[in-house]
Amino acid sequence: MFKFEIIHRSKKTKARIGRIYTSHGIIETPNFIPCGTAATVKAMTPKSLKEIGVQVVLANTYHLYLRPGDKLIRSAGGLHKFMGWDGPILTDSGGFQVFSLSKIRKIDDEGVLFSSHIDGSKHKLTPKSVIEAQLNFSSDIIMPLDECPPYPSKRSEVERSILRTEKWAKESLKAYKDNGVSTLFGIVQGGTYKDLRIESAKRIVDLGFKGFGIGGLSVKEPKDLMYEMLSAQIEHLPYEAPKHLLGVGYPDDIKFAVDLGIDTFDCVEPSRLGRHGAFLTDEGKKIIRNAKFTKDFSPLDKNCDCYACKNFSRAYIRHLFIANEILGIILLTFHNLRYMIRLMENIRNEIHC
Amino acid sequence: MFKFEIIHRSKKTKARIGRIYTSHGIIETPNFIPCGTAATVKAMTPKSLKEIGVQVVLANTYHLYLRPGDKLIRSAGGLHKFMGWDGPILTDSGGFQVFSLSKIRKIDDEGVLFSSHIDGSKHKLTPKSVIEAQLNFSSDIIMPLDECPPYPSKRSEVERSILRTEKWAKESLKAYKDNGVSTLFGIVQGGTYKDLRIESAKRIVDLGFKGFGIGGLSVKEPKDLMYEMLSAQIEHLPYEAPKHLLGVGYPDDIKFAVDLGIDTFDCVEPSRLGRHGAFLTDEGKKIIRNAKFTKDFSPLDKNCDCYACKNFSRAYIRHLFIANEILGIILLTFHNLRYMIRLMENIRNEIHC
Repeated sequence: MFKFEIIHRSKKTKARIGRIYTSHGIIETPNFIPCGTAATVKAMTPKSLKEIGVQVVLANTYHLYLRPGDKLIRSAGGLHKFMGWDGPILTDSGGFQVFSLSKIRKIDDEGVLFSSHIDGSKHKLTPKSVIEAQLNFSSDIIMPLDECPPYPSKRSEVERSILRTEKWAKESLKAYKDNGVSTLFGIVQGGTYKDLRIESAKRIVDLGFKGFGIGGLSVKEPKDLMYEMLSAQIEHLPYEAPKHLLGVGYPDDIKFAVDLGIDTFDCVEPSRLGRHGAFLTDEGKKIIRNAKFTKDFSPLDKNCDCYACKNFSRAYIRHLFIANEILGIILLTFHNLRYMIRLMENIRNEIHC
Repeated sequence: MFKFEIIHRSKKTKARIGRIYTSHGIIETPNFIPCGTAATVKAMTPKSLKEIGVQVVLANTYHLYLRPGDKLIRSAGGLHKFMGWDGPILTDSGGFQVFSLSKIRKIDDEGVLFSSHIDGSKHKLTPKSVIEAQLNFSSDIIMPLDECPPYPSKRSEVERSILRTEKWAKESLKAYKDNGVSTLFGIVQGGTYKDLRIESAKRIVDLGFKGFGIGGLSVKEPKDLMYEMLSAQIEHLPYEAPKHLLGVGYPDDIKFAVDLGIDTFDCVEPSRLGRHGAFLTDEGKKIIRNAKFTKDFSPLDKNCDCYACKNFSRAYIRHLFIANEILGIILLTFHNLRYMIRLMENIRNEIHC
């Protein structure tokens, strides 16, 4: 089941309030999707995610294909049941991960031959196998294998890659079977060449997807360039379709992209920062180990309504990090995710005004 | 505030059902006290502990004195407020930890001079400083510095040590000030010499404590010997006083000790096992990484009512451990603590029959 409904349009920008209906519930948009890479949002229980207000999680096809394997997840009754999360799940294409994590052995129009970053074992991802894996997961939103060129890349490289991404998108549509749950999005690429961004959008849109992922941005290019690419490309994606900006999740980037009409975002940063002892506030990120927090008995963020902020002080959480206690990671992750969810709640409220 | 009430006596054994009333709530006995060494039960939020049914936690004076320091905890408004746990807290004497973790530089009748296991810094624990630290914590049950001889120890060594423990107990009583919250227990020792166990009990009981900790058992001596010592010593402790068996928490040991009239237990084992991938069941402990659990979609323990067992499979939790995911530790710790709390609930029910 899949439906996207735009329920309100901003009077000032192209931002919109929407609802994505899936078999596992509704996603209010614009929204932030925490990363549950290996079928767990690191250090969080599904119950905590619900408390935080998370509506949808992302899991990585590349990671789950390698471990524990998509067939095992299918035997478990699908990814929702396996990981104990009954809300919507988006799985990504594996494209970005296979290029950034594994040792590529060969890449051609057929797919990607690579060595696992876990144990060096050899594997091949093809458009078909990536779709099959995600149908085994039974995720609500699934993505086709795409090629994500690094930054910077030569124009000729990017030209070739958008054609390959288009070819793979076609094969993905062919491999896709409606299981009543999973909806296939298209992914647009195009590096940092405005005309190639537009061309990729046109080619992918022509194939007739119900939603789109915008890939290959926030991969080391300067912010201005990213904003320019996004602004140019989004004009060529259908207004009525839901649009996900892959791997982008800094507050400023989110605000910019929402105003262009982006509906969802995912990013590992809030949870990664939490694990490494940083917490988000309206004055930027702060480092909990900082000595100035030793006797600071105030909450992480006085404006925050999360479990960590309502019950614990900076001094306590600093102590937990200094003593290498897991609870420190749990509390900062909890806060950072709640920070992102509140940000999105505020953004939705502002669009309503 | 402190009161102990025996509300039911077993018809078959010396076991009893009781209630310890503290300023932070009631402890139903017999009960298990999870270890919150560094002001956190590892990997658990206080909210999770409440869900598990935990009524009281233990924190280590030695660890908290070193880091973050008892004065900082006092500035935070005491240990309950610092760690966000509003139920009763028992803090131990630091005696066992200073002997087992630190590098002892000098020990005499005055106290223990040692190097911190964290940074090698030099410190001195005296009966007075240990009481002062715990009054700064404002724990509900506090313990006097004691000497815990290793196993095996010569008779002459243990003879000397029970005298020193008695001397320190007297000094602790002198240093103790009623802050309206903290109640001082006495600790009895005596190694594995039955007559010295009895003598230590008599000497400490004579000083007039409201409750007792039994120390120096389960420190490598054979089980039979431990049971013999405990059986002999408990006869010489007042029936009406609450009795805590320090550092003992294996299910069989608990059952044996409850039948002798022990009221509370603490042990790091259930949470430590959880962190290392083992889970408790009525058929003994099992190792989650075991390959036989790869496709085992049943809960950790089919008889368990805990969050982990109600929502996740062995296959999923195994995957989390294989992938080094913190959620694996959280779920096994949750289950193991619930296992202990259910064990105590069942023990209390059996005493009622």
